[in-house]
Amino acid sequence: MKLYYSPNACSLASHIALEEVGAPHEAIRVNFSSGEQNSPDFLAINPKGRVPALVTERGIITETPAILVYIAQSFPDAGLAPLDDPFAFAQVQSFNAFLCATLHVSHAHLRRPYRWADDAAAIAEMKRKAPEVIGVGFAQAEAMLQGPWVMGERYTICDPYLYTIGRWLEGDHVDPVTVPRLMAHRARMESRPAVQRALTVEGLAR
Amino acid sequence: MKLYYSPNACSLASHIALEEVGAPHEAIRVNFSSGEQNSPDFLAINPKGRVPALVTERGIITETPAILVYIAQSFPDAGLAPLDDPFAFAQVQSFNAFLCATLHVSHAHLRRPYRWADDAAAIAEMKRKAPEVIGVGFAQAEAMLQGPWVMGERYTICDPYLYTIGRWLEGDHVDPVTVPRLMAHRARMESRPAVQRALTVEGLAR
Repeated sequence: MKLYYSPNACSLASHIALEEVGAPHEAIRVNFSSGEQNSPDFLAINPKGRVPALVTERGIITETPAILVYIAQSFPDAGLAPLDDPFAFAQVQSFNAFLCATLHVSHAHLRRPYRWADDAAAIAEMKRKAPEVIGVGFAQAEAMLQGPWVMGERYTICDPYLYTIGRWLEGDHVDPVTVPRLMAHRARMESRPAVQRALTVEGLAR
Repeated sequence: MKLYYSPNACSLASHIALEEVGAPHEAIRVNFSSGEQNSPDFLAINPKGRVPALVTERGIITETPAILVYIAQSFPDAGLAPLDDPFAFAQVQSFNAFLCATLHVSHAHLRRPYRWADDAAAIAEMKRKAPEVIGVGFAQAEAMLQGPWVMGERYTICDPYLYTIGRWLEGDHVDPVTVPRLMAHRARMESRPAVQRALTVEGLAR
């Protein structure tokens, strides 16, 4: 498989999951600073011009929640999702949908507000309000985090996704003191060899 | 089961899916015009203050993509998702994640821009740009729609979700002429008895 990623983008969640299950893969960096995500070559891979995109032998998969479940389902021995328990699986899916459609979207209003406005003053206003909105989202995630892992005792595909978005917290001007359990989760994640491997490949290891 | 919904909101997708599988359920309207979604009683059901919320005997599920898969998985005979084919299931999940995190989010910038800005001029600017952004999203959905159903010959949980968001198209100032396959899909959906039953319950039947 090939994973198209940008360092520290939401693609890191899929990258960690690939490392967790031990899936043979190649990680291919998409250079966002040169606009490579909108190049004809990359748009042929993902017409939406975003990462992650996972190239499998059957075709290409986009959208983090879909890729994470695909990895869990393709490597069932790793046990990254309660696939045979509809209610427990729904909780995993619900958490990841919240990260994807609410928390990541809030973050995007700080980083890519031009998606939703052209006027400079409106863009500035979205950036001004974004930390407040992102803070509410992180507080909600903090309340959902059961501990030690998102779903409790079981490490699932929710954990690399929360970790990935949680890494943006300080840059999003959210005070880490307000989310202590999330910060403890981050430290717990960084003790996992799979996480360190993905960070190293993306040039993010400390 | 109990489904908390608001008429013509994204909860319609879950409502249709419940009707498609023949799941015994009660549909409970949440009165958004009186702000009931933010009442203590409703926040006890969904702390995020949104619909849909599905109350099952094991607990509550929120977020449309999660509820749709839960319904498909709980009623496997209806065949609403290719649950045993990781790649095909990933395509279903990817489409629904796109609707949830991109197309619905674009729509929200027209209807609930105050989520991301306080200033009146910024809110007006988001509303002004929204139809353009929503139009791009619908064009992307149109390109993904294989026909006759979203995933081709098989009717899946993508179909009620696309239908539900597609119903907002005219109100979102997108020209139906630009998305002919989506409009044909809408008509195809409306010929299904399960869709008509859900529309009737929500007071939307014509």
